[in-house]
Amino acid sequence: MERVKARTLSGFMELLPRQQAQFERVKGILEETYARYGFTPLDTPAIEASEVLLAKAGGETEKQIYRFTKGDSDLSLRFDLTVPLAKYVALHHNELAFPFRRYQIGKVYRGERAQRGRFREFYQADIDVIGDGSLDIINEAEIPAIIYQTFTALGLNRFRIRVNNRKILNGFYDMLHWSHRAPDIMRVVDKLEKIGAEKVGLMLHDDLGLDQDAVGEIVRFISIRGSNQEVLAALEEYRGRNETFDQGLEELNTVVRYLGDFGVPQDHFAVDLTIARGLDYYTGTVYETMLLDHPEVGSVCSGGRYDNLAEYYTEKQLPGVGISIGLTRLFYVLQEQGLLNEDLPTAPCDVLVLPMTEDLSPAIAFATACRGVGVKAQLYTEPKKFKAKMNYADRIGVPYVAFLGEDEVANGVVSLKDMVSGEQEKVALEAAPEWLREKVAARNKGTPIRE
Amino acid sequence: MERVKARTLSGFMELLPRQQAQFERVKGILEETYARYGFTPLDTPAIEASEVLLAKAGGETEKQIYRFTKGDSDLSLRFDLTVPLAKYVALHHNELAFPFRRYQIGKVYRGERAQRGRFREFYQADIDVIGDGSLDIINEAEIPAIIYQTFTALGLNRFRIRVNNRKILNGFYDMLHWSHRAPDIMRVVDKLEKIGAEKVGLMLHDDLGLDQDAVGEIVRFISIRGSNQEVLAALEEYRGRNETFDQGLEELNTVVRYLGDFGVPQDHFAVDLTIARGLDYYTGTVYETMLLDHPEVGSVCSGGRYDNLAEYYTEKQLPGVGISIGLTRLFYVLQEQGLLNEDLPTAPCDVLVLPMTEDLSPAIAFATACRGVGVKAQLYTEPKKFKAKMNYADRIGVPYVAFLGEDEVANGVVSLKDMVSGEQEKVALEAAPEWLREKVAARNKGTPIRE
Repeated sequence: MERVKARTLSGFMELLPRQQAQFERVKGILEETYARYGFTPLDTPAIEASEVLLAKAGGETEKQIYRFTKGDSDLSLRFDLTVPLAKYVALHHNELAFPFRRYQIGKVYRGERAQRGRFREFYQADIDVIGDGSLDIINEAEIPAIIYQTFTALGLNRFRIRVNNRKILNGFYDMLHWSHRAPDIMRVVDKLEKIGAEKVGLMLHDDLGLDQDAVGEIVRFISIRGSNQEVLAALEEYRGRNETFDQGLEELNTVVRYLGDFGVPQDHFAVDLTIARGLDYYTGTVYETMLLDHPEVGSVCSGGRYDNLAEYYTEKQLPGVGISIGLTRLFYVLQEQGLLNEDLPTAPCDVLVLPMTEDLSPAIAFATACRGVGVKAQLYTEPKKFKAKMNYADRIGVPYVAFLGEDEVANGVVSLKDMVSGEQEKVALEAAPEWLREKVAARNKGTPIRE
Repeated sequence: MERVKARTLSGFMELLPRQQAQFERVKGILEETYARYGFTPLDTPAIEASEVLLAKAGGETEKQIYRFTKGDSDLSLRFDLTVPLAKYVALHHNELAFPFRRYQIGKVYRGERAQRGRFREFYQADIDVIGDGSLDIINEAEIPAIIYQTFTALGLNRFRIRVNNRKILNGFYDMLHWSHRAPDIMRVVDKLEKIGAEKVGLMLHDDLGLDQDAVGEIVRFISIRGSNQEVLAALEEYRGRNETFDQGLEELNTVVRYLGDFGVPQDHFAVDLTIARGLDYYTGTVYETMLLDHPEVGSVCSGGRYDNLAEYYTEKQLPGVGISIGLTRLFYVLQEQGLLNEDLPTAPCDVLVLPMTEDLSPAIAFATACRGVGVKAQLYTEPKKFKAKMNYADRIGVPYVAFLGEDEVANGVVSLKDMVSGEQEKVALEAAPEWLREKVAARNKGTPIRE
């Protein structure tokens, strides 16, 4: 038979069982945390009509789309979860209650140039709160709490959520009478961390033609540093000169004021006037989340407030606020940095049941009893030598092996071997499933990430 | 602004939040049950190189494939989870431990003609056990137990697992010297339920040219009915005439013998000599699962034993046994038939927290405390009238609403309203999260399906 070489496309993550178990654990914590904040799970098709999906897109994004025809249909794979959400909310508007809070964790597709750590198929994990006509500012204050809880639940502590408000930026550039070049200015300011304040000033002057006064003001503004209270105090000095700015400052004050109540410690949160998150989509609070020890990774959780989710589909005003975690990339980075907690079990089962008798009934009954109390049990019946069986147990990394020989069956016990400590003990058959359940629960304590 | 009409492609399931919650519950039970039997979760790309994915395909399947090019690459969307598994096992053979037990619940794509209840994007929920060179028969006996547990956990009771063995069929046609036409014969026999034994006999004679003796033998064979013991006894009469047949009968005896130990009641299981499941892939035990009250749906969980999972990719002999549930179609049918348990909560949250004071801190603190014990809490802060707030609570179907007014805050209590009974009571603030946790747990008791 002519054979085809098995391969997985480059840029597509495919994990071995052990890594997949770790990935599922991380994904599970995102789902659980999002759900706890009252977000409903959503699942939309991976394929949409190109006309619908690309209503807004253009430029760089459009080039990356997986687009094709099937029959008469012009189809595209989704490249994010926001456009499908916009379509969903526009389409089902009458059937939804607002604010509509949804989370979605799903695969998206971008035909980027393949390179290490860049994926063409990857999971995004998004939450959004959508209002009908209006949406209260408290929703913007709650978002950093959700980010904080999510990352803390994963086991991360060394991270910081950066917050800014687009109204402050827009109002500020308006004060300088340079709001018509605001997108270009923000693009230059975005390089601050890489090139420093001085070079940003030079570029603003040389490339964009800003006068020295404006450049000076901007450099002074983006150089505002300090505690959140200090930054907010510095911003107060600009108050009263521009309505948009003042509104943004109000919003930022509200967000910061409620953070303590929402349980976000001060040191995990920083007002940062240099972040802008894209150029025209966001209209209020914006968020970035940095891993303190891995700034080179960039933001691992970003988002913000927008005024019009679905303007390409409906005349209804649908403001919202949302964040997105690039789950596949985050997992890749955690793995690369050795941050995954290797002590948590990743085996397909908690106990491998080895029957040592001709009649398999006692082993089957024991495995069934284990499953009854929620212990993941696998029956191993392949006719192999004992050593091969134990080798299999080692390779799948199972925490416990159960032996059921003539002796055990006759005495109503089972021999349970702890594969980590090597210790073995006999436990009464009826007590053993619960014994295992407790041991396994203890082993599963702990977070998927360990810094 | 020119707008695009929001729409979802026909043949693509997109659920409203309430239905999505029900779907997630069903999916969750499949995951949990599969995991309990020691299957490891797997996730493979939705896109594969066409050359790899279509190594085996042909005919009807190939026409349905979503196939396209991106740059120089000829790509296809997966149409099942078996071919990607074959690729995975061939590719990662050295890194896996065998038997390799995996479950995968994921979307697959088939460009079928759109019609009611047919989907172009749908979830399959598969388990497979793959051996390296050999695989013990007990794995085939365990499969009906997993099907039984899965459907029972969902809340279904009115179903029956049909089992047959391909070796019995192949051996039987060999006895009649008609094994060269076995695929055609099986295709005719497959119509038995629709057209009856007499017409099957006519077709075998008229269309396939079988002699009257052979036709008589086949009609007699497929008319064998009765309890599992009666059917097995009838098969004993054919023993000794064909080696393949005898081996198949041994296997079937073993599968039936261990069913009781595996906890499958006799009435949920039937040896059925008429099922064959496809034409050449399966080589041993085959399974179908019928909903007794909805035979028109066909099999909702099918599979079987195969000798060569990955022969298109590797010379290694990889026998296995697996089953697949067409989850999207099953969910559609359950919904259509009104079988989903409408009493289980489907709201995004367990409690909607309504602050009735200017200062939101107490409400935020209470919502945070609820989340701390696993209660899903949503803070509702939109500046709406009381009636609009309660209307929102009704629309999302939340089981409890928490009121925190000046009075409550001053007295250290929270007013909790049961939205089903309409009853309202004051509970001490510190006790309330646990109070809610218990109430919510009780409400979530029950299976997602109710017959």
